[in-house]
Amino acid sequence: MTEPNIDLVTFGETMARLENPVVGPMRHARALDLGVGGAESNTAIGLCRLGGTAAWFGRVGDDEFGRLITNVLAGEGVRLGHTVVDRSAPTALLFKERRAGTLTRVQYYRTGSAGSRLCPADVPHDLIRSARVLHVTGITAAISATARQALDDAVETAREAGVPVSLDLNYRRALWTPAEAGECLQKLVKRADLLFATEQEARLIVPDADDDLAALAGSLAALGPRDVLLKRGAAGVVALCEGALHVQGAHRVPVIDPVGAGDAFAAGYLAEFVRGRPVADRLDTATAAGAYAVTVRGDWEGLPSRADLDLLKSAEDTVTR
Amino acid sequence: MTEPNIDLVTFGETMARLENPVVGPMRHARALDLGVGGAESNTAIGLCRLGGTAAWFGRVGDDEFGRLITNVLAGEGVRLGHTVVDRSAPTALLFKERRAGTLTRVQYYRTGSAGSRLCPADVPHDLIRSARVLHVTGITAAISATARQALDDAVETAREAGVPVSLDLNYRRALWTPAEAGECLQKLVKRADLLFATEQEARLIVPDADDDLAALAGSLAALGPRDVLLKRGAAGVVALCEGALHVQGAHRVPVIDPVGAGDAFAAGYLAEFVRGRPVADRLDTATAAGAYAVTVRGDWEGLPSRADLDLLKSAEDTVTR
Amino acid sequence: MTEPNIDLVTFGETMARLENPVVGPMRHARALDLGVGGAESNTAIGLCRLGGTAAWFGRVGDDEFGRLITNVLAGEGVRLGHTVVDRSAPTALLFKERRAGTLTRVQYYRTGSAGSRLCPADVPHDLIRSARVLHVTGITAAISATARQALDDAVETAREAGVPVSLDLNYRRALWTPAEAGECLQKLVKRADLLFATEQEARLIVPDADDDLAALAGSLAALGPRDVLLKRGAAGVVALCEGALHVQGAHRVPVIDPVGAGDAFAAGYLAEFVRGRPVADRLDTATAAGAYAVTVRGDWEGLPSRADLDLLKSAEDTVTR
Amino acid sequence: MTEPNIDLVTFGETMARLENPVVGPMRHARALDLGVGGAESNTAIGLCRLGGTAAWFGRVGDDEFGRLITNVLAGEGVRLGHTVVDRSAPTALLFKERRAGTLTRVQYYRTGSAGSRLCPADVPHDLIRSARVLHVTGITAAISATARQALDDAVETAREAGVPVSLDLNYRRALWTPAEAGECLQKLVKRADLLFATEQEARLIVPDADDDLAALAGSLAALGPRDVLLKRGAAGVVALCEGALHVQGAHRVPVIDPVGAGDAFAAGYLAEFVRGRPVADRLDTATAAGAYAVTVRGDWEGLPSRADLDLLKSAEDTVTR
Amino acid sequence: MTEPNIDLVTFGETMARLENPVVGPMRHARALDLGVGGAESNTAIGLCRLGGTAAWFGRVGDDEFGRLITNVLAGEGVRLGHTVVDRSAPTALLFKERRAGTLTRVQYYRTGSAGSRLCPADVPHDLIRSARVLHVTGITAAISATARQALDDAVETAREAGVPVSLDLNYRRALWTPAEAGECLQKLVKRADLLFATEQEARLIVPDADDDLAALAGSLAALGPRDVLLKRGAAGVVALCEGALHVQGAHRVPVIDPVGAGDAFAAGYLAEFVRGRPVADRLDTATAAGAYAVTVRGDWEGLPSRADLDLLKSAEDTVTR
Amino acid sequence: MTEPNIDLVTFGETMARLENPVVGPMRHARALDLGVGGAESNTAIGLCRLGGTAAWFGRVGDDEFGRLITNVLAGEGVRLGHTVVDRSAPTALLFKERRAGTLTRVQYYRTGSAGSRLCPADVPHDLIRSARVLHVTGITAAISATARQALDDAVETAREAGVPVSLDLNYRRALWTPAEAGECLQKLVKRADLLFATEQEARLIVPDADDDLAALAGSLAALGPRDVLLKRGAAGVVALCEGALHVQGAHRVPVIDPVGAGDAFAAGYLAEFVRGRPVADRLDTATAAGAYAVTVRGDWEGLPSRADLDLLKSAEDTVTR
Repeated sequence: MTEPNIDLVTFGETMARLENPVVGPMRHARALDLGVGGAESNTAIGLCRLGGTAAWFGRVGDDEFGRLITNVLAGEGVRLGHTVVDRSAPTALLFKERRAGTLTRVQYYRTGSAGSRLCPADVPHDLIRSARVLHVTGITAAISATARQALDDAVETAREAGVPVSLDLNYRRALWTPAEAGECLQKLVKRADLLFATEQEARLIVPDADDDLAALAGSLAALGPRDVLLKRGAAGVVALCEGALHVQGAHRVPVIDPVGAGDAFAAGYLAEFVRGRPVADRLDTATAAGAYAVTVRGDWEGLPSRADLDLLKSAEDTVTR
Repeated sequence: MTEPNIDLVTFGETMARLENPVVGPMRHARALDLGVGGAESNTAIGLCRLGGTAAWFGRVGDDEFGRLITNVLAGEGVRLGHTVVDRSAPTALLFKERRAGTLTRVQYYRTGSAGSRLCPADVPHDLIRSARVLHVTGITAAISATARQALDDAVETAREAGVPVSLDLNYRRALWTPAEAGECLQKLVKRADLLFATEQEARLIVPDADDDLAALAGSLAALGPRDVLLKRGAAGVVALCEGALHVQGAHRVPVIDPVGAGDAFAAGYLAEFVRGRPVADRLDTATAAGAYAVTVRGDWEGLPSRADLDLLKSAEDTVTR
Repeated sequence: MTEPNIDLVTFGETMARLENPVVGPMRHARALDLGVGGAESNTAIGLCRLGGTAAWFGRVGDDEFGRLITNVLAGEGVRLGHTVVDRSAPTALLFKERRAGTLTRVQYYRTGSAGSRLCPADVPHDLIRSARVLHVTGITAAISATARQALDDAVETAREAGVPVSLDLNYRRALWTPAEAGECLQKLVKRADLLFATEQEARLIVPDADDDLAALAGSLAALGPRDVLLKRGAAGVVALCEGALHVQGAHRVPVIDPVGAGDAFAAGYLAEFVRGRPVADRLDTATAAGAYAVTVRGDWEGLPSRADLDLLKSAEDTVTR
Repeated sequence: MTEPNIDLVTFGETMARLENPVVGPMRHARALDLGVGGAESNTAIGLCRLGGTAAWFGRVGDDEFGRLITNVLAGEGVRLGHTVVDRSAPTALLFKERRAGTLTRVQYYRTGSAGSRLCPADVPHDLIRSARVLHVTGITAAISATARQALDDAVETAREAGVPVSLDLNYRRALWTPAEAGECLQKLVKRADLLFATEQEARLIVPDADDDLAALAGSLAALGPRDVLLKRGAAGVVALCEGALHVQGAHRVPVIDPVGAGDAFAAGYLAEFVRGRPVADRLDTATAAGAYAVTVRGDWEGLPSRADLDLLKSAEDTVTR
Repeated sequence: MTEPNIDLVTFGETMARLENPVVGPMRHARALDLGVGGAESNTAIGLCRLGGTAAWFGRVGDDEFGRLITNVLAGEGVRLGHTVVDRSAPTALLFKERRAGTLTRVQYYRTGSAGSRLCPADVPHDLIRSARVLHVTGITAAISATARQALDDAVETAREAGVPVSLDLNYRRALWTPAEAGECLQKLVKRADLLFATEQEARLIVPDADDDLAALAGSLAALGPRDVLLKRGAAGVVALCEGALHVQGAHRVPVIDPVGAGDAFAAGYLAEFVRGRPVADRLDTATAAGAYAVTVRGDWEGLPSRADLDLLKSAEDTVTR
Repeated sequence: MTEPNIDLVTFGETMARLENPVVGPMRHARALDLGVGGAESNTAIGLCRLGGTAAWFGRVGDDEFGRLITNVLAGEGVRLGHTVVDRSAPTALLFKERRAGTLTRVQYYRTGSAGSRLCPADVPHDLIRSARVLHVTGITAAISATARQALDDAVETAREAGVPVSLDLNYRRALWTPAEAGECLQKLVKRADLLFATEQEARLIVPDADDDLAALAGSLAALGPRDVLLKRGAAGVVALCEGALHVQGAHRVPVIDPVGAGDAFAAGYLAEFVRGRPVADRLDTATAAGAYAVTVRGDWEGLPSRADLDLLKSAEDTVTR
């Protein structure tokens, strides 16, 4: 194993994201807001904002949406040296209809996209070996057969090099069935060192686990991961890390857009993990990152800097309007 | 009576609606959002979105605002075969000042408008006779003498043909006094089969009714209507339908714009009524329609489709963020 | 006659103005830009921007549009001490449809408006007597009988006090017929000292004048005015001032919105007139003000300050891109 | 043949259209304007605006973009009784990058779209037989094999019923090669009564024709069409109609968005054709419609009403700014 | 002492204010909203809206931002006769980053600004002597030495003329340390008749005061002020006025933007004070003004008119949605 | 000299740029568009878009504007490894008032800015030595004494390493007088290999040169530069390169925003220069880059990619609308 020189390596499909600016039927919008999003690249951005270094790789189309993705990621400081511009396929699109309150619907134009053409040949083995952590999500296993092979290859490379593997289950019902996902993801869980999941996702892996969340976390940890993080949204997190149970609440903030909260949580946790900070610090930063994510529109736009963490803390310390 | 071939027929005055996009004094707005609104056409749109068929008639001016109204209604699937373009009068305007929170003020440019020139000659008797329900509101009685005559004519036509008459009291203080309204509307209530009212409106009709809402509904039902729906906003609804009392809460949603909630409620109720669904279903759809109406800006823009009803239900079934 | 202590007094009806921000059918606009406009108040603003002092009076409604008008005019430095808030009538509205290129359509909601209720009792005689010039337009004669009386009263007051009367014919076809206007305006021309007109307007007054513009100006001057300004848009101006003929071209600028160019021209001319500047200077400032007016959207928004006049001059002196 | 009761029937693929509101690289846009567009539906809208009746059919997806298309077309008065909502495929998307001046780039998400699944079973034979004209474009021949079959079926139905066939070649290089297009479209030309083409498109059909435009039109007419319209953009039109040559210039207007000009031209021509007006009138309306189309952003948004034609005419009759 | 003819005189530095329209990192904004703000001018506007008369003086730069400030203040009816345009220094800027929820950050471009060059020569002694109250804030003491001298001069002038002095402590940490502020502001408190402060600000003046708010108010009153108002945001106000203790809650409203609430409170209180109304009325208007301020974006934009006070009252009297 | 591994190195002050979105007085804008701009970084972006590699260095403040600058430049692919975040000074601001047509005014908040604190210690000598060209502008010499020293140091480093020095005079009247600039810049010209200048700027250096542009270019070349490019805006360019005179026209495009055209020209020229392309190719790319720059708002936003160059060429090759 070489000396680590990058904190986090991640990969997957990042899409152009279009959504209605004002809540209601999407067809009423005169214009759709344009941005980018992808679970893995969201986490990479989050880590960079918190002072870490991150690399993302994947495929984008040779079109304005592909250029938007690389512009945004490079602008946020994510390293893109191994990202491929695929001239044979378009960049995938994600339309998000903000229908009422925080109720949303998603429509993909993703079939045959550049991002889904990710394959083992795209995997930069040396880069992965040089990382402090490899972060992957279950989405990559679902988008195509070649992407799943690339995922396997990357995880295997990390394990062989002693690089911890972080896995966020990120189940997406538009991409596969619970049964398909459960079978595939269970194998991944067994090879992961850190695991992020919602309760619903967790039960895809260990359907027979107890109702109790601590027991559920225990069942997952029994499969391999040393840190298991059960994310509960506004209810906080139940974590079983290095054998100890941690229960932590979420910050009380107005929820504007819950999308991306999980990616933010992972970014916060990993940002402290790669710095060798204790679990309590990891959870503090993870929950603060989640709070910032949900109070700002967009998947990653609201992710905090270190100065933002201080701002939140000082605001909560003061009893003022 | 011929075989019904349209679910709902309604009519009245629909106006161009202009409002400040950001809450505050209207004069601070650099631009005013432009839309359309009218209690009856809102309900017609709501019924179409829920899969029904609806026709609306009335007068609009030969101007961009009149064309906006017919464009929007036709676009939403409302049948406009009997709508009149009046070349002698302008389309009415409604300015809505969103002043602070949900506090609003309304200013009309409505005197002598095309819509208020509605008259008995405009009433399509055959269309009314072919409907499953005729829906009217108290506003039409208030905008002009000829409109009131048209209202009488339409109601009488429906009654003679055995078409149920639905009445939403919709008292508007800018148009007449409580005393004028009470006298006029009471006569309408006596000829209605379904009655929608807020508590305040109800007391214009039966000022001596008991404080208790069930008793109030009873007093109204005693005048004739077989279904009496007392709308209570965030507190839900008290309904006396076909002799049975129903008390139902509202969905807990963030209220963005309460205007149009009553029209949505009527649309939801009538959408199930014309399909012959039981009262419980009517109230479920009515309250869901009301919830959608208040979480989206605009009078009718947020009205739900059948798929939207499912989305709301599935979101409330899940305990997640 | 007392010592003049205000440069210009003017009056009339100022309206709220709503228009589509992007060229096309107005009904396609999701929002309409909100502003104010009135020929006389445009000229008052123009004079203030050029360093003069101006007062405007008239009636506005007790509504947000009335407050918008007084906010804008006071903000621009126009004195409003004699402006009346009329609690019985609404502020008039002007909708401007920018249909294609610079083709526009206008729709008024003006019948019975506060502004049209201007009457002789509103005329501040002392203020008029203290002015260096009284500026009026033909519009005021057309909006109502009482407004026309107020116009007569004001003009008579000025004449008796030796205050020069400036008249811009400003014929509006939506308000009266050419015949009505011609008869009425001819009487006003006979009492005016300075006269602004387009060729078409001029021929309403002297229908039998020669085709030649110099002759046309002469025919008008023969009725009384010592300065006659025939405005020709992009073709410049033909002026017969104090007996001498002046022909001047317009600045070559991209025309964005021609509305208000005439008011700007009058403002520029009068700004120099009240300072006692020679005709050449008056025409220079008038044409520069016209150029600024047409290159900026809105009736008065683009009107120039003295520094802006210098900017235009220095740009035209340089041969650069 | 039954008595015609609709002026124009047309069909094809209509797409959701997204474009950057401010000229520049599309990825710089914070939001993309949302609308709809399709050559055939543009022409249908244009005919409705000019007072005619038009029906359009085709397939849209069961998504917000499909609903946007049907909302817009129904709102504009186009009859949609035979339009199919295809639950198995998404609505196609068209991204238009307004790159610099009027330079644009187009990117489609159209493969496997609902619209391209049009097939002969979708063709409403009775509707076509009842029309005064059937209007088709070459695009439909290019989007799929089933769509081409539907096109053949529709054309044959019209011919058998004596309904004139109008064909706009509308060659799209993203969909097929010049050779493919030339072969296929030539067969269509032979069955068409009216033919619309640019010079470049015309030469796909008759590659050996003379340089001279009159000769080119003659070569096309020799294949069958009784009216051949060679569109030349700002240079006007060369037409060989019923054996006579017509050369007409275009209106001088600022070109904001040239897309849709050809569809507008066809709409204007056909609007007069179905009313039995002479060629000179058809060309006048066609060129005026083209002028309106290019001065307003969007493919169809600027299309003129009869009143708009008058406005353009009166503006050009007056020599004023 | 001359007869008062203006209700309130105030002065200080008013800045151009730029902020991101959508919550998140400011650098993500494609445009920043432009407005003006200054604690003292906010209060002057508030008093004018409530029907009083107010004058503000200070320095602005000879630039668009200075002109924006004078346009806004004059438009709102604030008298600016003694405001100075300083040609040697720019108008100060305030950037407000709306980071998440109501968490904000402020960045000034204020060093060497026109406003900070305020000096004793700018103080209009006669104007101050003619006022019903002089209102000052601690900010002016902090921006420059000359401004502090002007503050001293103005306060002394008022005291000598028997004009009550109102002081809002308004501590700004970006401008000075707590120690500097405490020493300087304590001297001002001793010369004030009315004192507005938050609890934190109050403890800068009387650091040894009891924890109890009533006692804290008493300690301040002991220094001189006859009315002491301790503002507690959403928790209301504790007031020790003319020897009596008043505790009043705040209105329950959705907080959109808390900035300016204190200035609004002062405006409401002083609006009734200058009319000689009792303390209960002063507190009612003050809390209502605060409620309006926080429900509307901007520092002063939401300030209420008398009609707005009625609207709030009537809405709270009704139990409806 | 090491093997070149970067095409272009440049440095200077890049600012946040705020401007009114709609032409007119800036104070009328409700919001100001936010972007970044700096002559040198504009050129670096331009070179990257054309496929080259570029590095920029300079100082930015530790604030949102500094982060905006680094986000944008990194997003565009500019290497920022030697850029300094200065925690003691704010990022400079540039306000651009788009006043009328293309008339603009500029206001800086630049005194004491982070960017002006650039000093010799910031200069990365190895980076400069590894470049194919060093590009500097006269602005850097004007912003501060330390920046001028840094400029001298960088130029000397390049010359010693045999790296060609490219100089764009870029005279800014707000920063220094013609006399100051002339003296300083002449020294720089003598050390430059490539020189970009307008005619006006050129005459600051060689005030006694002949009127003829070829002679003017000759006078400049006599001072040292082997390539002299006299930029003439819409009139094209006169170039004296490697001893040969080239006269080339500009593309005919609608000018939306002329700012940045010079930086674009330099980028285009240098993009071909570093690839060793002949002068004709350099001028072609330079003029095309200039055309793209002026047709898009913003200083650098419109700069072309290689594909954009092809698009422009193919559009000009076709005679169509």
